[in-house]
Amino acid sequence: MTEIQRLDTTDADYRERLDGLLAWESVSDDRVQQTVAEIIREVRARGDAALIDYTARFDRWSPAAAADLEIPRARLATAWERIPAAQREALEQAAARIRAYAEHQRVESWSFEEADGTLLGQQVTPLDRAGLYVPGGKAAYPSSVLMNAIPAKVAGVAELIMVVPTPDGELNELVLAAAYVAGVDRAFAIGGAQAVAALAYGTESVPPVDKVVGPGNIYVATAKRAVFGQVGIDMVAGPSEILVVCDGHTDPDWIAMDLFSQAEHDEDAQSILVSWDRDFLDRVAASIERLLPTMERAEIIATALRARGALIAARDLDDAIAVANQIAPEHLELSLADPQAVVGRIRHAGAIFMGRYTAEALGDYCAGPNHVLPTSRTARFSSPLGVYDFQKRSSLIMASAAGAATLSRTASVLARGEGLTAHARSAEYRGEDAAE
Amino acid sequence: MTEIQRLDTTDADYRERLDGLLAWESVSDDRVQQTVAEIIREVRARGDAALIDYTARFDRWSPAAAADLEIPRARLATAWERIPAAQREALEQAAARIRAYAEHQRVESWSFEEADGTLLGQQVTPLDRAGLYVPGGKAAYPSSVLMNAIPAKVAGVAELIMVVPTPDGELNELVLAAAYVAGVDRAFAIGGAQAVAALAYGTESVPPVDKVVGPGNIYVATAKRAVFGQVGIDMVAGPSEILVVCDGHTDPDWIAMDLFSQAEHDEDAQSILVSWDRDFLDRVAASIERLLPTMERAEIIATALRARGALIAARDLDDAIAVANQIAPEHLELSLADPQAVVGRIRHAGAIFMGRYTAEALGDYCAGPNHVLPTSRTARFSSPLGVYDFQKRSSLIMASAAGAATLSRTASVLARGEGLTAHARSAEYRGEDAAE
Repeated sequence: MTEIQRLDTTDADYRERLDGLLAWESVSDDRVQQTVAEIIREVRARGDAALIDYTARFDRWSPAAAADLEIPRARLATAWERIPAAQREALEQAAARIRAYAEHQRVESWSFEEADGTLLGQQVTPLDRAGLYVPGGKAAYPSSVLMNAIPAKVAGVAELIMVVPTPDGELNELVLAAAYVAGVDRAFAIGGAQAVAALAYGTESVPPVDKVVGPGNIYVATAKRAVFGQVGIDMVAGPSEILVVCDGHTDPDWIAMDLFSQAEHDEDAQSILVSWDRDFLDRVAASIERLLPTMERAEIIATALRARGALIAARDLDDAIAVANQIAPEHLELSLADPQAVVGRIRHAGAIFMGRYTAEALGDYCAGPNHVLPTSRTARFSSPLGVYDFQKRSSLIMASAAGAATLSRTASVLARGEGLTAHARSAEYRGEDAAE
Repeated sequence: MTEIQRLDTTDADYRERLDGLLAWESVSDDRVQQTVAEIIREVRARGDAALIDYTARFDRWSPAAAADLEIPRARLATAWERIPAAQREALEQAAARIRAYAEHQRVESWSFEEADGTLLGQQVTPLDRAGLYVPGGKAAYPSSVLMNAIPAKVAGVAELIMVVPTPDGELNELVLAAAYVAGVDRAFAIGGAQAVAALAYGTESVPPVDKVVGPGNIYVATAKRAVFGQVGIDMVAGPSEILVVCDGHTDPDWIAMDLFSQAEHDEDAQSILVSWDRDFLDRVAASIERLLPTMERAEIIATALRARGALIAARDLDDAIAVANQIAPEHLELSLADPQAVVGRIRHAGAIFMGRYTAEALGDYCAGPNHVLPTSRTARFSSPLGVYDFQKRSSLIMASAAGAATLSRTASVLARGEGLTAHARSAEYRGEDAAE
């Protein structure tokens, strides 16, 4: 019997139990903090030599020279040629759709002129150089390479640097092929906190970037937090989550498999279903029972469902929506007859999968929207990774003579109110001259 | 003699000296880290009681009850009535212009339908609740209240909570008046790390917010870094900076005053002028000499110019632009005859002030664009505070039956390539059904 928790929004202890389920704090203990701080210090002080040492120690292979740290672009092309045609085609199709969607996200410069001739606006520019961290080993996902790299290239980032650890020197062909089709400019076979430090500060071989994105283990996450400010970073991700809201008319096997698809990521992943049809919750529970033994990753799924999964009985649709807004899930499936009637009431979610045909898995790979999404309730204040994360804005102000005369009066009053007289006089110079 | 450094881009040690000038790392030492960690723990554990204790200890006044921590909205209105009419008018004009500019920044939802009926897009929503930190004491700037609060309200944030320490129980009328006109919903007389903790986690009196913005001292900055993830935060700001690029035809007194207006903020502020007209650099140096003794904050200005200021001789306009892109300044003045011919080549700057009439001070108060800008070269990857910082996006995906059939094939190949078979089967269910 798979023990997945059953909650009911009308239970007295409902909120307490839900909070318990959602609770997640990623803690880097002092040991991790100190290790990371030392690695960053070493990479800043010794550059490539430190990268070679750490690669030998953590990835168990010894680069003969610093040049060996780089994976040449030609090697990416080789991987592209080597993988089966079906995978090449799938990567190509996914890349094309992710690119087409990303094109809609590009932020454009804008400006307007006021009646007195003063111009105001914002100039939007891409980052010069971005760094993409790709995990090695079991969490090496080619789809993540596409999702992180393509928005950067669409934004116009001139140089995109990928780092990927190669434990025991082993390269992942599918990851390299994804880097090839996504347009990664340079790749380095380094990982861990040392790779993040190299991207942030640069070494003789690795050029310093302006922003580091991509998932990683606790050392990588801690290093990203530490270099934030020196470079930009994306969100530090928690475990992946899905919340399915269902009216009870979707095939329960489909919903069970959607819950599995989240739970199979790792033991901490979270799968929750909410419905006001209690019989349907029972049918999904039965599907879980029946299908679980057929799954390749049954043990991971069972652990995740037991530890962090739930079937929640709500009073009605409104109540289910309230649950969704409370959870602010990374992935939200609205498996409903008319999801478009409901979506406008969703206040917080990373991505919303609407209708019975839209399995989250379609979005994970190839629907177009990014699969790098805010986790752990951070959808309350943050957004999917997008082209906008690789662009930045500069405000534009060009005062006409008449505009300066008007503005300088207001600025002068406020500056003097704050005791900043150089501000006041700097403004007044322009006002007096313009008024002459 | 005011010793402001003179650099020349053709000098052999130019780059080294420039790097030395720009170097800035804000370091929270272990003692600050531990103090902040303890304050956050206490506020989480004891709520209002901890706020009352810390307020007594750090701000030297004792709230009789938790209710006294709140500054009622009526008190903000009283401040608005109390300040001189000229200040009320200036605040009103500044607020109107900041609001009008911000309206241009609102990000809108978008979606499109593909040929097979699949819908893709992004739904944009405001944050539910935002927290605004306003420093007390010497750095209490009403203009900062406007600049932080107005974009939040334009974004549609339902509840905006301001916190402001009141050392010795003293309220700053101009700050309260600015909060009134900017539409702050609730205000609390608390500050320091305890105020940040209260906003992030909530107490009996202070509601938890989704994002904390606004400047503060090292304790506030350290607390913001610590609660990042639980809530969103804006950038942690370094000292303020200006870079003026001038062709030599602006009144040197104006340029000197612009450099002063930055330097008067504090001893760490940075003022740099670059020009290819060496005589002009000498004339500005002479203006600095002559004007400095007339300044109210002469000592702060002199210290800042000596420690971190510079006059840089460039070869020509192109060289000056390269200097600007290298420095990636918070404020960039293009004091040139035709700044619009040049602005497209500026890759990194927080705000660009174009033409001889556009003193930075105009932008600081009332031109419209935000004065909360990326400092310390972070304009390489970040943007001025704006409406977009108080909005977030949810991706939208609604696959048609035909769309699901196509997408499920690609998703299945990639999911199996990554060993995630629940993903594959979840996609395949939809594909098979749609194909029937």
